Amino acid sequence: MSTRPGEFELISRFFAPLTKAEPGALGLTDDAAVLAVDGGEDLVISTDSLVAGVHFLKDDPAPLIAAKLLRVSLSDLAAMGARPWAYTLNLALPEDWDAAWLESFAEGLGAEQGLFGLCLVGGDTVAARGPLNLTITAFGRVAPGRALRRGAARPGDSLWVSGTIGDAFLGLGARKGSLAGLPQAELDYLISRFQIPRPRLSLGRQLAGLAHGAIDVSDGLIADLGHLCAASGIGGEVNAGLIPLSPGARRLIKSGAVKIEALITGGDDFELLFSAPQAAEATLLGLRIEDDCGPLGLTRIGTITPDSGVRILDDNGLPLTLDETGYRHF
Amino acid sequence: MSTRPGEFELISRFFAPLTKAEPGALGLTDDAAVLAVDGGEDLVISTDSLVAGVHFLKDDPAPLIAAKLLRVSLSDLAAMGARPWAYTLNLALPEDWDAAWLESFAEGLGAEQGLFGLCLVGGDTVAARGPLNLTITAFGRVAPGRALRRGAARPGDSLWVSGTIGDAFLGLGARKGSLAGLPQAELDYLISRFQIPRPRLSLGRQLAGLAHGAIDVSDGLIADLGHLCAASGIGGEVNAGLIPLSPGARRLIKSGAVKIEALITGGDDFELLFSAPQAAEATLLGLRIEDDCGPLGLTRIGTITPDSGVRILDDNGLPLTLDETGYRHF
Repeated sequence: MSTRPGEFELISRFFAPLTKAEPGALGLTDDAAVLAVDGGEDLVISTDSLVAGVHFLKDDPAPLIAAKLLRVSLSDLAAMGARPWAYTLNLALPEDWDAAWLESFAEGLGAEQGLFGLCLVGGDTVAARGPLNLTITAFGRVAPGRALRRGAARPGDSLWVSGTIGDAFLGLGARKGSLAGLPQAELDYLISRFQIPRPRLSLGRQLAGLAHGAIDVSDGLIADLGHLCAASGIGGEVNAGLIPLSPGARRLIKSGAVKIEALITGGDDFELLFSAPQAAEATLLGLRIEDDCGPLGLTRIGTITPDSGVRILDDNGLPLTLDETGYRHF
Repeated sequence: MSTRPGEFELISRFFAPLTKAEPGALGLTDDAAVLAVDGGEDLVISTDSLVAGVHFLKDDPAPLIAAKLLRVSLSDLAAMGARPWAYTLNLALPEDWDAAWLESFAEGLGAEQGLFGLCLVGGDTVAARGPLNLTITAFGRVAPGRALRRGAARPGDSLWVSGTIGDAFLGLGARKGSLAGLPQAELDYLISRFQIPRPRLSLGRQLAGLAHGAIDVSDGLIADLGHLCAASGIGGEVNAGLIPLSPGARRLIKSGAVKIEALITGGDDFELLFSAPQAAEATLLGLRIEDDCGPLGLTRIGTITPDSGVRILDDNGLPLTLDETGYRHF
């Protein structure tokens, strides 16, 4: 009836080759993977589901979807200070899937594996009876007790964020064609920030033992600061003027085309937001952080306070009021 | 707009309580789980996706769907000889989900956790834009190098299977109302075999060091024997007359309402199929195997042969020809 490969052929053709670096994957031919674990490390587990039309666009290139899938979970590992190790992959395929798409998707996964040093160890493939639905469960390792935690921020800590904030939000707008007034190169940069998260793995590992509370910014800077504060039982105060912005974002703010409120409530930044004692400032600014896209900056944007709740202050020290504190895919 | 709980409330109300036994789940409030691993054990990972309308019926009771989801993965752990430990759960919810359904589903998960001694440690919830899609990734532990493997069957081994074969296939028919000629109690039993897999965890653990090759029967006895043989690079010969059947299945075979071919190519038995040296027969028959539904029998059904391929012989020693060797959900 169909010339598309069956489940077993699909596994052996596209996915088994992705397991080569890990004998414990058993070439995806067994009931489960069997991984030897170093007793000297903690196991870090993160899982994410991405749905076509919700988390990515159906016509996004397959390697780009593969990259986003892996990197969203890797960003969680980064926020725990963990080293990537392995992952499982569940595909629920739409009616109209074809082998060429899957091949391209698997090639994308292979390229990402090489970049981040992790390996496929298991999975499942089913019919979605709806849009493409991808689930990744990523495994990392970290020295015992050294994982970064959301709940470890303390009053008096400085608040830090990596990279720049709001680019993914602007990139989504650029991708939809609703963002004007920027040169094409800046539009392309913003779109890439929306499409390809940069998991801050190197930073996360260097923060172990240095930072107190840490989280990756996926729901939006302010929403995720809220999560950090809630988990730590403290509050946070951010100076809006200190929030690091890319040149494109700065230009759009300056022209009035975009408000800072939109950038700090937009999601998908995948930067790390963390707190650290004030005494750590010099050490933090001295870190040499290289991620897959080059050197990465760190910016002090505020302070952890003993009370609860999140406050954003403008350049005059007056509080900004936000309508939304994070967007939801859900 | 909606009175349904948002993602964070949903997690804290329904799912965080399921993590109580494992501090490393961090109450589902962090970016990932952090589990301390005994250096003296191997980590076993299995993952399965189940879709409404494909793997279960949309109107199946929520606790029953929860049970099936967990048990399908636990059956994989059983086939590896592993002890259940933890799991992550990804829910892609249909448009019409409601809180009462989720509450009932979570209660079902809780009951299963108690039965099998494992604990939720992470997950994700998204909009499916299609039917309910559930992904479980289950983690087990096993002594180093002691995991059962598909690829370890050897020529001259006896072939064994636990419990009875074909009940789930008949149960699906009974559920659809297409199975007549049996008393209601037997219909109910067959339906329960279709709806609620019985992972053979106790058996799997006792087989470590005793069995050679092992697999759980999910695609159908003959198809899974094919997988075992392919992974081991050997062949298998089954005597159809030795295949263990429940009283209801025997009655339907006797009346001619059903053929043995249908029972051994139907899926979802979730029994263990394994090979063991002939010298292990007395030990195997002497095992006291208690699973969650009571004592479990083992039956010798054939032999592992040096050549490749699977043969089924009738009572006269003549080969049976099968049209299908396993059904696919995919």
